[in-house]
Amino acid sequence: MNKWYMNDGSERDIVVSSRIRLARNLNGYPFPNKMTSEQKYEVIQKVSDAITKSRSKWKNKFVFYDMDKISRINAYSMVERHLISPDFAENGQGRAALITEDETVSIMINEEDHVRIQVLTSGLELKTAYKIANEIDSLLDKSLNFAFDSELGYLTECPTNLGTGMRACAMLHIPALETMGAINPLGNTISKIGLTMRGTFGEGSTVKCSMYQLSNQVTLGISESSAIENLENMTKQIIARERQARSGIDRDKLEDMAYRAWGVLSSARMISSAEFLNLADKLRLGIGMEIFDRVGLEVIDELIMICQPASLQVKAGGALDEETRDKLRARTIRETLEK
Amino acid sequence: MNKWYMNDGSERDIVVSSRIRLARNLNGYPFPNKMTSEQKYEVIQKVSDAITKSRSKWKNKFVFYDMDKISRINAYSMVERHLISPDFAENGQGRAALITEDETVSIMINEEDHVRIQVLTSGLELKTAYKIANEIDSLLDKSLNFAFDSELGYLTECPTNLGTGMRACAMLHIPALETMGAINPLGNTISKIGLTMRGTFGEGSTVKCSMYQLSNQVTLGISESSAIENLENMTKQIIARERQARSGIDRDKLEDMAYRAWGVLSSARMISSAEFLNLADKLRLGIGMEIFDRVGLEVIDELIMICQPASLQVKAGGALDEETRDKLRARTIRETLEK
Repeated sequence: MNKWYMNDGSERDIVVSSRIRLARNLNGYPFPNKMTSEQKYEVIQKVSDAITKSRSKWKNKFVFYDMDKISRINAYSMVERHLISPDFAENGQGRAALITEDETVSIMINEEDHVRIQVLTSGLELKTAYKIANEIDSLLDKSLNFAFDSELGYLTECPTNLGTGMRACAMLHIPALETMGAINPLGNTISKIGLTMRGTFGEGSTVKCSMYQLSNQVTLGISESSAIENLENMTKQIIARERQARSGIDRDKLEDMAYRAWGVLSSARMISSAEFLNLADKLRLGIGMEIFDRVGLEVIDELIMICQPASLQVKAGGALDEETRDKLRARTIRETLEK
Repeated sequence: MNKWYMNDGSERDIVVSSRIRLARNLNGYPFPNKMTSEQKYEVIQKVSDAITKSRSKWKNKFVFYDMDKISRINAYSMVERHLISPDFAENGQGRAALITEDETVSIMINEEDHVRIQVLTSGLELKTAYKIANEIDSLLDKSLNFAFDSELGYLTECPTNLGTGMRACAMLHIPALETMGAINPLGNTISKIGLTMRGTFGEGSTVKCSMYQLSNQVTLGISESSAIENLENMTKQIIARERQARSGIDRDKLEDMAYRAWGVLSSARMISSAEFLNLADKLRLGIGMEIFDRVGLEVIDELIMICQPASLQVKAGGALDEETRDKLRARTIRETLEK
């Protein structure tokens, strides 16, 4: 089955993915950080049942992961694929995840809140992602009856999530703005209108492959659709600016850069994660600017997913030292590019 | 017609080429630096006639170049291909060259001496090269009657060439010894036995592509065959040392290095001369060590000949700025590798 990143999406040359995350909690239980093991187990059971015992089309679409039982490598590979949070991977005790095979929907149980629903789509497709998230939300709510206050909205552990409990996020590939040094000033503007720009893996993470998370900050006193509208508008502005910045790049130099990146990626026998991401960044820009067309954006986005350290080790079926990983990464890249 | 470097030769992974040069002068004329223009013209005519009016198989094999009339770019491209000396290219006045189409034999007229016969072969083939040089020498001597003293041997402008007038030279590709820092100590040893190690383009030139000229210093009191024997023996010792050094290289790293070099060479859209030579060096080592086999050594050696600045401009038919040259170089490399 195709993963979400193999599907097309609008403005995909700049918007790698759209993501919607909903924070929800069950009535009658304290927040996860105050729960007993028994309570955690109960919540896991209830959430899981709400799907698998339903009559919905989602009934058989999820795979259940007991986070306490899966290997750390497996857990970190989920982080790399943006399916769960780093904290969720660090500590699996009393936690579980439900993830669809195409990795579009993931549900973290007993992260900061009882339930975190997340939907990922490729390109700028926030409304599509929200529609799916809303479907899952309704399905779960039917049997779980999420904690909701008529004034405060959805109750969440952290007050910054109160209200809609929704975080909408666009993953932007903006190498031209980055090269121009335009990201920091942009970040300042953005924060004034209730949005925020973060690193590739969210708050406090470093930026990889010129990819930035743009997301909404405000969840209280604003509807889901308005929040999504705001984010979409700002995303479109950034897209326009990135396109403007890209139009100023010397096409000959970019062509050379993209082809060299292709040359190394399709030839190297060992490649580090950092070098790979650096080259993927350049190649993605070349493809986005229609200067390079031997592969599509989806191939690069797939590589970025499958070539990170933990995902490679999952593929290999066990822990690998750095050199072996670098070799496997190079082989994986070559095989994927040759396809 | 195949150039000499497209032919095979023994120990070619380490010995790029073997070269024999004979310095000869005509009786009845001062050395070139003391000659009048008329005398220079006469010598050019005589040497040229000695070949074209002969009945030898060489009769129609040479192309005549009036060094005063050809463009400097053309002249420098001959230097790049080791057919003439840099000084000969700098100042064409009263000078001419006769060069076979396969570039095996070149005759400089009115360089430091009246006649400089040079023969180039690929691999360690000093005896083959000498045999050809000797043939040309005999052919010219028949009508020109070279200046010869029964005690001093062939008379030459510079006393260091007196005697045999012969310089034998092996162009060595010794990247492993270079990396080990073994070249300087080797140079010291070599100089004690009447040999010398020089840069890629001879005395005082910088080393490019890990290529060194090993040649005999002594021309007096030693026969041609002994001088060649000495050089060949030392070359074989260096080959053995280089092979030893190569066997210590991490094959995985070398494989990666060679494939990356291939990747960049076959993909880049612009490439400087320095970067090209650096990558050609690595790829040549990978091919020599049978780690890389998509192209043979002759392809790399051909590239090294045709991708230098002047040769590229000859190909383009005129002067090119650096950027255009870097683009043409990249295209030439890609086309050659794809063949």
